[in-house]
Amino acid sequence: MTDSTSRGNELTINGERLWASLMEMAEIGATEKGGVCRLALSDVDKAGRDLFVQWCEAAGCTVTVDRIGNIFARRPGRDDSLPAVMSGSHLDSQPTGGKFDGAYGVLAALEAVRALNDAGVETLRPIEIVSWTNEEGSRFPPAMMGSGVYAGAFGLEATLAETDEDGAVTVGAELERIGYAGLDPVGGRAVHAYFEAHIEQGPILEAEEKTIGVVTAIQGIRWFDCRITGMEAHAGPTPMDVRKDALLGASRLVDRINHIALDHGPDGRTTVGTFRIHPGSRNVIPGSVELSVDMRHPDAEALASMAVALQNAVDAVCAEIGLDGALDEIWYSPPTPFDPTCVDAVRRAAAETGGAHRDITSGAGHDAKYMADLGPTAMVFIPCKDGISHNEIESAEPVHITAGGNVLLRAIVEKAEEPG
Amino acid sequence: MTDSTSRGNELTINGERLWASLMEMAEIGATEKGGVCRLALSDVDKAGRDLFVQWCEAAGCTVTVDRIGNIFARRPGRDDSLPAVMSGSHLDSQPTGGKFDGAYGVLAALEAVRALNDAGVETLRPIEIVSWTNEEGSRFPPAMMGSGVYAGAFGLEATLAETDEDGAVTVGAELERIGYAGLDPVGGRAVHAYFEAHIEQGPILEAEEKTIGVVTAIQGIRWFDCRITGMEAHAGPTPMDVRKDALLGASRLVDRINHIALDHGPDGRTTVGTFRIHPGSRNVIPGSVELSVDMRHPDAEALASMAVALQNAVDAVCAEIGLDGALDEIWYSPPTPFDPTCVDAVRRAAAETGGAHRDITSGAGHDAKYMADLGPTAMVFIPCKDGISHNEIESAEPVHITAGGNVLLRAIVEKAEEPG
Repeated sequence: MTDSTSRGNELTINGERLWASLMEMAEIGATEKGGVCRLALSDVDKAGRDLFVQWCEAAGCTVTVDRIGNIFARRPGRDDSLPAVMSGSHLDSQPTGGKFDGAYGVLAALEAVRALNDAGVETLRPIEIVSWTNEEGSRFPPAMMGSGVYAGAFGLEATLAETDEDGAVTVGAELERIGYAGLDPVGGRAVHAYFEAHIEQGPILEAEEKTIGVVTAIQGIRWFDCRITGMEAHAGPTPMDVRKDALLGASRLVDRINHIALDHGPDGRTTVGTFRIHPGSRNVIPGSVELSVDMRHPDAEALASMAVALQNAVDAVCAEIGLDGALDEIWYSPPTPFDPTCVDAVRRAAAETGGAHRDITSGAGHDAKYMADLGPTAMVFIPCKDGISHNEIESAEPVHITAGGNVLLRAIVEKAEEPG
Repeated sequence: MTDSTSRGNELTINGERLWASLMEMAEIGATEKGGVCRLALSDVDKAGRDLFVQWCEAAGCTVTVDRIGNIFARRPGRDDSLPAVMSGSHLDSQPTGGKFDGAYGVLAALEAVRALNDAGVETLRPIEIVSWTNEEGSRFPPAMMGSGVYAGAFGLEATLAETDEDGAVTVGAELERIGYAGLDPVGGRAVHAYFEAHIEQGPILEAEEKTIGVVTAIQGIRWFDCRITGMEAHAGPTPMDVRKDALLGASRLVDRINHIALDHGPDGRTTVGTFRIHPGSRNVIPGSVELSVDMRHPDAEALASMAVALQNAVDAVCAEIGLDGALDEIWYSPPTPFDPTCVDAVRRAAAETGGAHRDITSGAGHDAKYMADLGPTAMVFIPCKDGISHNEIESAEPVHITAGGNVLLRAIVEKAEEPG
């Protein structure tokens, strides 16, 4: 083996091998519509884990499992006492998931290790491929379970006691059953850097014909419940000027909420995703509307400003029509800015490998969100067809799969050569 | 007896007797919350009919029943060969109905006859008090059944074959069972005039402190189903400028629909009463919205103009956002302008009896709508508390009950003295 410093610019992954591994993994839990159903801690999750472990061991890695079932496959460094560069994602899927969400990040990290093996390159620092337990949260809440426990966001024992929707079985019991209740403590190790490759799950890269998204941050999210209350009345006999039409107020609110995003730059996002009117009768003026508001922004101050604007919008539309408005914030997930040196490493790797790239923020949560609490972190996005994810028709191009893998490899190597 | 011409301006009803009759009738089917449940052709409907018939016979009237169960109580005129002045309404109620909706119009007409009896006044034309079968349509469709068959809007045999929601029993069988399957043909008699007294079921008279509404027309109604279709997408990763948010489009449409009413004068009414979004998930941009539109106006041309404006609004909001819009008209009930001479008679009676009054249109349907197809027709409205109807808390003031009865009496007498 040589060290990687002299060869970093020549290293490339084997895109065909990565694609073949993705397709082989996608057979485990394959659905008729071409997707994947590999729910966390199910028999098919076990089968996926087993295949991953087999591949890692074949690549010369030492595999360990911690108490929440996270799998770590370690490739030693020249100085194996230095904190590792970690990279991975998750192998579990949504009930109607696709082939790439999660699996791509795990297998791209594996491919990076395979490529280093092929090139006979030894890095200064160890590299750990990681497969996090239950990122989707479809079967057991919460989402990003394994990385969240690893980063200390969730308690281990409480998480092991989480039950599925039926209350029939716990996380701990299922880990035991599938043989992935590891003995290692969860977390507690220094992380030099963490990189995660993922499909974008959005339309930007495809629309702009970019190959690589250099992910600078995960958006912060504020969730609100809002209730607009007016007065039910008969549609026929009630003149317009005496109505207290809750739907009219809520409708104006939706338009204003849309403007709040536009007023906060290209990274602002607002969505009203649920909207229920009462009583919901064709000839009755609606008396109340309940709606949800999802606000996202990568900048915490901007997100706070959006929340203020939302309260002002509720007050304004209610005052216009004589309605009552109630607004409750039910969840806040702060923005997660990624580490500038890790982001630079990704951007540089993208530039060096010649892929068209742009900075981007992640609108969805990822395991990288929790890893950013533990050490320098960044992500690599590649396009997915029509921005569709969490769907069996989720699709990505081999050329993008390969390009993302090469960017991930270079970023990992750059960080893995940083001295202690 | 004397004839009424010399005494028309002195005639008054006995308000206490009318109130007492209303309260006695309200005991039949009385609900715990102070309302009435007297569903058409039920045992309590039979009890209400029996009481009404008993009262009419006590007032010297000849009672007949037609094949759809409409009850006519005839007070002879000086020339009994002339077409009668008819007045009435209905005794059936909504499942959670009030004491006044329908019963007031029947018992105010009865009180007019009683008052004429008390005064010893004989009118030129006969007067017929009528109680129409199944105005509400709650148990058997359609609403305004008895008057609709009487006016030829519905076929008799098909209507007798209508079943309740369970399909368990027909109108005809229930009429037989309660003893109101009459032998008389339905309709076919000339009507000199028809007057119907009713609570407003709206807020206008109460808000303006008017005692009497001189009803000039029943609004026309157009009902539409509208579907706005965009594209579902994740709330996080999808930038605002590429979204096709069906809820945003539908919300803007609601505001425009509100403006369509305002653009068509004080009598224009528009209501979006049902509004369902899909998929209705907090972090998914809505892909489609289905909504209903109820448009009303007493003028057919204005109502047609409102329909054109609606299509234009759908087209405009869809073009703004890149959505698809589908609009289907599912029902049209043309406006029913009332007869000017009958309306004048009501207005004159209101002025003479000193009640504060205003012209008003009816936003809801009434038996008078079908009677207007057969002969000169008008209605008398009185205020109801908070505009509330079809509710057990429906309420009206004795002073308004009396005032409306006096207006009805004078209008009936004026028309009943018109020569043949």
